[in-house]
Amino acid sequence: MKNAISPTRNENFSDWYQQVIIQSKMAENSPVRGCMVIRPWGYGIWEQIQRELDKKIKDTGHSNAYFPLLIPLSFLQKEAEHVEGFAKECAVVTHHRLEKSTDGPLVPAGTLEEPLIIRPTSETVIGASFSRWVQSYRDLPLLINQWANVLRWEMRPRIFLRSSEFLWQEGHTVHATHDEALVETLKMLDIYERFTTEHLAIPVIKGEKCSWERFPGAVSTYTIEAMMQDGKALQAGTSHFLGQNFAQSSDIRFVNKEGIKELAWTTSWGVSTRLIGAMIMAHGDDDGLVLPPLVAPTQVVIIPIVRNEQNADAIHDYCKKLQKQICRKKLKGQNLRASVDWRDMNSGEKKWYHIKRGVPVRIEIGIKELEQNMVSYSIRNNSKTTLKFDAENFVNNISKTLNALQKDMLEMAQKKLSDNTTMVTTLGEFKERFKQNAKLNAFVLAPFTEDENVEKAIGELGATVRCIPLKQPGISATCLFTGRKTNTWALYAKSY
Amino acid sequence: MKNAISPTRNENFSDWYQQVIIQSKMAENSPVRGCMVIRPWGYGIWEQIQRELDKKIKDTGHSNAYFPLLIPLSFLQKEAEHVEGFAKECAVVTHHRLEKSTDGPLVPAGTLEEPLIIRPTSETVIGASFSRWVQSYRDLPLLINQWANVLRWEMRPRIFLRSSEFLWQEGHTVHATHDEALVETLKMLDIYERFTTEHLAIPVIKGEKCSWERFPGAVSTYTIEAMMQDGKALQAGTSHFLGQNFAQSSDIRFVNKEGIKELAWTTSWGVSTRLIGAMIMAHGDDDGLVLPPLVAPTQVVIIPIVRNEQNADAIHDYCKKLQKQICRKKLKGQNLRASVDWRDMNSGEKKWYHIKRGVPVRIEIGIKELEQNMVSYSIRNNSKTTLKFDAENFVNNISKTLNALQKDMLEMAQKKLSDNTTMVTTLGEFKERFKQNAKLNAFVLAPFTEDENVEKAIGELGATVRCIPLKQPGISATCLFTGRKTNTWALYAKSY
Repeated sequence: MKNAISPTRNENFSDWYQQVIIQSKMAENSPVRGCMVIRPWGYGIWEQIQRELDKKIKDTGHSNAYFPLLIPLSFLQKEAEHVEGFAKECAVVTHHRLEKSTDGPLVPAGTLEEPLIIRPTSETVIGASFSRWVQSYRDLPLLINQWANVLRWEMRPRIFLRSSEFLWQEGHTVHATHDEALVETLKMLDIYERFTTEHLAIPVIKGEKCSWERFPGAVSTYTIEAMMQDGKALQAGTSHFLGQNFAQSSDIRFVNKEGIKELAWTTSWGVSTRLIGAMIMAHGDDDGLVLPPLVAPTQVVIIPIVRNEQNADAIHDYCKKLQKQICRKKLKGQNLRASVDWRDMNSGEKKWYHIKRGVPVRIEIGIKELEQNMVSYSIRNNSKTTLKFDAENFVNNISKTLNALQKDMLEMAQKKLSDNTTMVTTLGEFKERFKQNAKLNAFVLAPFTEDENVEKAIGELGATVRCIPLKQPGISATCLFTGRKTNTWALYAKSY
Repeated sequence: MKNAISPTRNENFSDWYQQVIIQSKMAENSPVRGCMVIRPWGYGIWEQIQRELDKKIKDTGHSNAYFPLLIPLSFLQKEAEHVEGFAKECAVVTHHRLEKSTDGPLVPAGTLEEPLIIRPTSETVIGASFSRWVQSYRDLPLLINQWANVLRWEMRPRIFLRSSEFLWQEGHTVHATHDEALVETLKMLDIYERFTTEHLAIPVIKGEKCSWERFPGAVSTYTIEAMMQDGKALQAGTSHFLGQNFAQSSDIRFVNKEGIKELAWTTSWGVSTRLIGAMIMAHGDDDGLVLPPLVAPTQVVIIPIVRNEQNADAIHDYCKKLQKQICRKKLKGQNLRASVDWRDMNSGEKKWYHIKRGVPVRIEIGIKELEQNMVSYSIRNNSKTTLKFDAENFVNNISKTLNALQKDMLEMAQKKLSDNTTMVTTLGEFKERFKQNAKLNAFVLAPFTEDENVEKAIGELGATVRCIPLKQPGISATCLFTGRKTNTWALYAKSY
């Protein structure tokens, strides 16, 4: 049987990815270089991600706020490593109006005294507020989150994965002690892990980034790394322990219980619309998107099949009734999201429209189903099978069906991850794993020493150090690149 | 009794406004010129506004999407009136990286081929997508909304009312006919009216803007105008019938049922964080903010009064129990939002903290209340009175109490509006109403003819034409400025 997406994943994974996005109408490249347009279906997924993550962020005591889009260059420069890390990606505002030039067309005018940078991340501009808000130990911990757009100029943009402008949440917190800040950093990493696992059905490996992969200005960066279907790794979220670096540069100090002024400790953490890209590449198939029920904007779509206009009203009423019944049911405390596709379009076309968009369950209702009080339904990850079922039972079991699908998707991804992660202890085997035409890219756990020669050597083999997993094998071994004894193992992979 | 805010509204309304914002910790000016920092309390109010408005927008068939922040200058120039209207307020991005200059500091580098404008509004960049999405009459109507930040460079910024960067929603729709687009324009105006009235407790006057107040590029602009406590008008939301102007410049065409290509009709409409400013000025008093219960981030705050450490645990448990009971109750389908203020701070200070923030109901619980199973509570718009009430009855009636407060606030504002709106038919009376030292500014309904001499004349008197109200007196009269007979009456006022 022919597939809806061409090329297939095996033929060309990267082109398949672009095609899924276009065919599902999730997003598109905009004529503005490097920027994307997130269409309603893609944005609907983002809204589901936001709702659940926002809840988790608030449940752990954080409040949302909003800080300026534009950062004066002098702010960004306060932290030397930080500005150096972002200098190549900064969109710079230099004028504040347009004016008719002598030969007619409008040109930038009103030169700014100081250039303003569109936030690539907000540590420095938020730090300026925090230094005012934090005065005493009573003001701590300060736990803030922001949902915002950020901009990092991209030379090779890819929708959702690497776009110049993207949407994200960035948490920023201030603490009285080193340990509290570190606990916060790891707590948020855990929340990201739980969210990607439970909601996106994507298992991840938690770990610390090595020095050359660290967030510019951080003391340590923690990451969750996910495996895509082509075996490559995608960094799905990061949480940074910033030590006192940004507190120092933004002057965030507090008077402690003993009345003595101290420098504070800060953290920051974020996930972005990149998660949508992760979901496409973790679950999609050759017919398009496959959405985990918990984040699908529509979980159940009802397609009326009207072959005879005489039955149209009866079928429509039946569909509407069914929709209402389904929407009364719940999944993880949320009412189900069901819709009826009334569009004037042939039913085959409609069916493929929803398959490509990854709607978890499709129901077709014709006159036969109506008369027998039955439903014919298909589950997206098994789209070739249509099952018939007594309508009442179907509705009563719909939450269970969706829950099972969510669980299956996670299990499939978990199996993929464990089947394709290997421990490697010889350089020969390591090279074999990362050779150009390896059938499947894979995750490799191998001994590691933090050394710039190591960075170079693995780079030459086409691999990257994804992280030092928090869960270590606890085995002493020899670093493949330095020959030194080490207890530390790193996760190596090709990456996005 | 001394008031919490100095100056009072009578002493200096404008300084009072700034003080309310600072003292309630809603927002602050940022070191970035013209930009504001929305602190958690202010952002919490925005989240309530968003939730309800988003629901209304979706219930009327619109979907959310997201479009690029940056607009190429050439896009903005496609509609001549439009670009002219915004030229003076455009933040222009001219470079895409930073580079070390020869003498050390970082300077903008990587000059862009074409300058990019930070969106002041998104008609032109959204139009580019719409021209691709709309092909056939089957694609219409196209009903899209976006929640986003926009930037209009402000020379005299004021938090929430006129900040360079602000948050808003902007709806953009495409229709097959003139009439459908006009219906949509007015439908969204109605939704804004219902929202400000029912949720913000602010009555508004709906009307059409006169030619010189129109959105640049629109055929007609509709507005809702609200009266602030100083009698000035605030434009609280607008809805634009764009005719075929933007469809023409963005090339949005569709094939109709007869197979013929037609130019489409578009609309756009928006409300912004300005609504928060409106709420402050409509309801605030000399003790600070007064929040309508439906948009208060915290509707009920419980303040434990612990005078003896021995009772601390018992009081805390009692407060927690009360909070849980209250949060189970509902107001307009939403669970109530109650919190306990556990902070280590004296209870007088705490009380004033919540008064200034406008929390609708405050409860104080000490050992006496616990033992008698009573609550002492105060309602914010009557903050000097404390009432004692049996705890169970209090909880059972809390939704009713909040509902009554919401209703009272609207009635107060409605009375203010009708008391201070007068019909005027002579120039002398008109001048009297708008003279410099008039005790209270007021709304004036007077005959109107659309003429640039009228614009000049009323400007000289310190007034502005707010709108031609949709509800007209239906009386023929003489325009005060042209002497011409007219059936049209306009709403005149001083304005923000």
